[in-house]
Amino acid sequence: MTEIAFIGLGHMGLPMAKNLLKVGHSVKGYDLVPEAMRAFVEVGGVSGQDIPSTVKGADVVITMLPEGKHVKAAYEGPNGIFGHTTPDALIAECSTIDMETSRYIHKEAEKRSLRLIDAPVSGGVAGAEAATLTFMIGGEEEHFKALHPFLEMMGKTIIYCGGPGLGQAAKICNNLVLGITMIGVSEAFNLSEKLELDKHKFFEVASQSSAQCWSISKYCPVPGPVPTSPANRDYAAGFTAAMMTKDLKLAAQASQMTNVSSPLGEEALALYTLFCNNGGQRLDFSGIIQFLKGQ
Amino acid sequence: MTEIAFIGLGHMGLPMAKNLLKVGHSVKGYDLVPEAMRAFVEVGGVSGQDIPSTVKGADVVITMLPEGKHVKAAYEGPNGIFGHTTPDALIAECSTIDMETSRYIHKEAEKRSLRLIDAPVSGGVAGAEAATLTFMIGGEEEHFKALHPFLEMMGKTIIYCGGPGLGQAAKICNNLVLGITMIGVSEAFNLSEKLELDKHKFFEVASQSSAQCWSISKYCPVPGPVPTSPANRDYAAGFTAAMMTKDLKLAAQASQMTNVSSPLGEEALALYTLFCNNGGQRLDFSGIIQFLKGQ
Amino acid sequence: MTEIAFIGLGHMGLPMAKNLLKVGHSVKGYDLVPEAMRAFVEVGGVSGQDIPSTVKGADVVITMLPEGKHVKAAYEGPNGIFGHTTPDALIAECSTIDMETSRYIHKEAEKRSLRLIDAPVSGGVAGAEAATLTFMIGGEEEHFKALHPFLEMMGKTIIYCGGPGLGQAAKICNNLVLGITMIGVSEAFNLSEKLELDKHKFFEVASQSSAQCWSISKYCPVPGPVPTSPANRDYAAGFTAAMMTKDLKLAAQASQMTNVSSPLGEEALALYTLFCNNGGQRLDFSGIIQFLKGQ
Amino acid sequence: MTEIAFIGLGHMGLPMAKNLLKVGHSVKGYDLVPEAMRAFVEVGGVSGQDIPSTVKGADVVITMLPEGKHVKAAYEGPNGIFGHTTPDALIAECSTIDMETSRYIHKEAEKRSLRLIDAPVSGGVAGAEAATLTFMIGGEEEHFKALHPFLEMMGKTIIYCGGPGLGQAAKICNNLVLGITMIGVSEAFNLSEKLELDKHKFFEVASQSSAQCWSISKYCPVPGPVPTSPANRDYAAGFTAAMMTKDLKLAAQASQMTNVSSPLGEEALALYTLFCNNGGQRLDFSGIIQFLKGQ
Repeated sequence: MTEIAFIGLGHMGLPMAKNLLKVGHSVKGYDLVPEAMRAFVEVGGVSGQDIPSTVKGADVVITMLPEGKHVKAAYEGPNGIFGHTTPDALIAECSTIDMETSRYIHKEAEKRSLRLIDAPVSGGVAGAEAATLTFMIGGEEEHFKALHPFLEMMGKTIIYCGGPGLGQAAKICNNLVLGITMIGVSEAFNLSEKLELDKHKFFEVASQSSAQCWSISKYCPVPGPVPTSPANRDYAAGFTAAMMTKDLKLAAQASQMTNVSSPLGEEALALYTLFCNNGGQRLDFSGIIQFLKGQ
Repeated sequence: MTEIAFIGLGHMGLPMAKNLLKVGHSVKGYDLVPEAMRAFVEVGGVSGQDIPSTVKGADVVITMLPEGKHVKAAYEGPNGIFGHTTPDALIAECSTIDMETSRYIHKEAEKRSLRLIDAPVSGGVAGAEAATLTFMIGGEEEHFKALHPFLEMMGKTIIYCGGPGLGQAAKICNNLVLGITMIGVSEAFNLSEKLELDKHKFFEVASQSSAQCWSISKYCPVPGPVPTSPANRDYAAGFTAAMMTKDLKLAAQASQMTNVSSPLGEEALALYTLFCNNGGQRLDFSGIIQFLKGQ
Repeated sequence: MTEIAFIGLGHMGLPMAKNLLKVGHSVKGYDLVPEAMRAFVEVGGVSGQDIPSTVKGADVVITMLPEGKHVKAAYEGPNGIFGHTTPDALIAECSTIDMETSRYIHKEAEKRSLRLIDAPVSGGVAGAEAATLTFMIGGEEEHFKALHPFLEMMGKTIIYCGGPGLGQAAKICNNLVLGITMIGVSEAFNLSEKLELDKHKFFEVASQSSAQCWSISKYCPVPGPVPTSPANRDYAAGFTAAMMTKDLKLAAQASQMTNVSSPLGEEALALYTLFCNNGGQRLDFSGIIQFLKGQ
Repeated sequence: MTEIAFIGLGHMGLPMAKNLLKVGHSVKGYDLVPEAMRAFVEVGGVSGQDIPSTVKGADVVITMLPEGKHVKAAYEGPNGIFGHTTPDALIAECSTIDMETSRYIHKEAEKRSLRLIDAPVSGGVAGAEAATLTFMIGGEEEHFKALHPFLEMMGKTIIYCGGPGLGQAAKICNNLVLGITMIGVSEAFNLSEKLELDKHKFFEVASQSSAQCWSISKYCPVPGPVPTSPANRDYAAGFTAAMMTKDLKLAAQASQMTNVSSPLGEEALALYTLFCNNGGQRLDFSGIIQFLKGQ
């Protein structure tokens, strides 16, 4: 049986690890937060003491951490994954982080002849729980193929995007579009309301026409048209405004690094930041429609 | 046989009138531009001398004009439609214009007990030619039903949106979303290129994920992924940047009139205006991706 | 002695009329709001019954109204200024309104051989009270000269800007810059605070360097550096956010009419609108710094 | 006599070093670019071989480098300033760099008990040549005082801003305002032109009113009103659009690091980037007015 090490058991990592346990794998996990560890043990996980003891002997190592600095800290140094993993382990770095760190981790793995892919996900907590995540993969195709069976236990759509860091690139560019369209859709619903156009009518038009997008069809920011969308439960997240802000920062950093002009992306970042600073932090990102309308 | 009067035979009006002729209707047309008249006669239309002689006796009157001021001029005054149409004619005002003028025309029609709907379209010249336009209807539902058979000869999707002007409202809000998403998608493709992510890979990810939208799936602004999109023919329009600019102005006006904050809509307007002023006027609006990238 | 008619006795008109009374002129005034009339009579003004009785026989007519539609209503129609003013009266239209209406009023005055200038002001209520307003004048230079002595009783800086409507143009362009710089300055103070740079230090640097501007030097949006600025009295207006929003709408309309790309102006409009919709309407426009920071 | 070491002899460093030479100081310099070295020797500088030989024995060390990574490289490692400067040298780090690196360099200096201040400048090449730069200082006040006489030889306005990195903070916030106001002023001049308001008239109004700012009064982006501004010499820099883009990136990074919403700053960054990508890179940043107008 494959031994899996799972580093980072937060709101995304925990349900992902759970899905691996469900299939019958032995999963040893580690997280700095005691509560996360407790929750993991409750669902059948084996508690690691620290990173070295967790990854030691594991056939597969999965990391799911908040930011680039946490990833660096987890991989490097005397207590890092690089120093304690077995040489033939397969490593899936699933965090959503900046391009620079992602490429750096790949380079360091390569130096040590370790088999690592970047594999950020989209789909939010709901997708993690339902094992319907989308994985976007960067790195050697061969390593991707070797890890594919494990990703399949946690996700539904698994797309190989190319070399090192290109999973991150795809994720960042995807969420850049998402962050922008959600605000655009929100502006349109707010305007249509003031023009006294029924929201169901606008939904009917927009979802069949050139305004059609995921933010309308699947995640509609007004209550009613899409019963499963967070708008119907007071914008309980889902995917928080804070997380969207983080992803748009990654996009802004990548744009600035490569001299790409991204006027709507930068503007969207400023608006989600404004929303967070005015109390929206933990709400679903689609809740920005309320902030834009005013209270 | 129904007598149809068609006022405004430009790049949209002409193919629409043609589709009515195809079905066997007698269509009398009028346009201020002699060339437009000639083209109309060539396809079998009957040439009107002016508005009064064109609408006199017609059972159905259709108008398709560039801006609110043209619509006002065509309906009002001694030579206007209001003064010369038969009292029981059905009138479809298909121009995309500002809410204020649309509502004003409705009110004037009502005063005269005339049966008028606003029925702006989306789908562009290609949709007009293929009779696959989307019609968004505002006005009395009963008038809408009476005109439905005629709209069906020119379009595929016909949606009743509500009272006077709400067809315009739907159109304006729809294109507000479209203008924004196209720029967002362009920024993402430009960034992905600089990050060395293959455009086909990004297309694959985005069209299956939360970035999915019409601007990617049906009208992709980079050549390749969607063979029918204008990107594959050097951004020959399609729907010109000038037309998108006009529609975003309508959205901006409506937002300003109703005190709606529309940061990305306003920004998109400024960017398409900039694109137009830098030579993009007649290109397809998706050509803004090239302008954003720089030459 | 010169007879002066003053139409529009709101928060700006009242103190302006007062300054004319102070000099010893007879001023007959009219406003639709009874309270405004009462306040005007209290300071020595003569109450008009309506527009015709107010302007009849007056040597000078001054109008100070909120929007273009009010100006149109006051000048046109059977009870309008145009129909009741003496042919040799001098007319100063001091409202801040859209270019289109301003030019229309000029044209109508010209048709009737009436001597009219547009003379919008800047300086706010404080400037109106202290008779330190800036007047920006459009129209025939000769009419401007004839009205100069009267403007001088209400303002300090009086600038002739050119032909009909160009006073409005100057005002609109001036406030476009003002609205943008105030937000820029606010962003910089918010950032400097988070970077732990003392606001007095940043003020010292910025007011001596390339960031120097009226919004810092004279109207600083943080309390302390400029003791007279609204920031020191909880953003009591001054010049309300609602008024700035109105002026940025005029700029946006003018830009859209002339196909000028104004990305920061449009964005500033969206942000002030957002601020107003989130409770800032009656606060001084510099209070946007608090909104941008979050509560 | 004081021995001065000057690291970084580019377009800013060279004229600054020259001003030190003029006063009679011995200045040893180093730059990676041979041409820069040659120009330095021509004006009387002593050529260093590398960093260690340049800073060895110097009483004062000045660094003027393009970006944070160059600063890190110059200070750290076996051939860095930290390893070869005398323990009692005074160090002025004059580069404009990111907050994070600036604070890191301070911390490293402190560990080694070295006396270092950050002292970024504003005023451009012209200010460097005329010794009229503005210095913004961060670090211990005592070190600032000790270095003051040397800064005075290169600049006119020298402002102590507070602790480590706060010179950078002041510079970044200052240029954030500058970048925004220049675009705002450009939009206003473009609009006024289309409204047929004479640019000299708008200048007259704006420079006396609430639109007043350095970007109008001292650096007016249209030719005429301010004869010394780059607009009068086809936008020859001055301060290039590329440099403004760099500074706005620093502001954006600082905003993102501290969760400050900076909508106009982010937008200005996107617009200067767009201007650079469309050929404006080496033009003065005020040349963006032409780009916004369209060609």
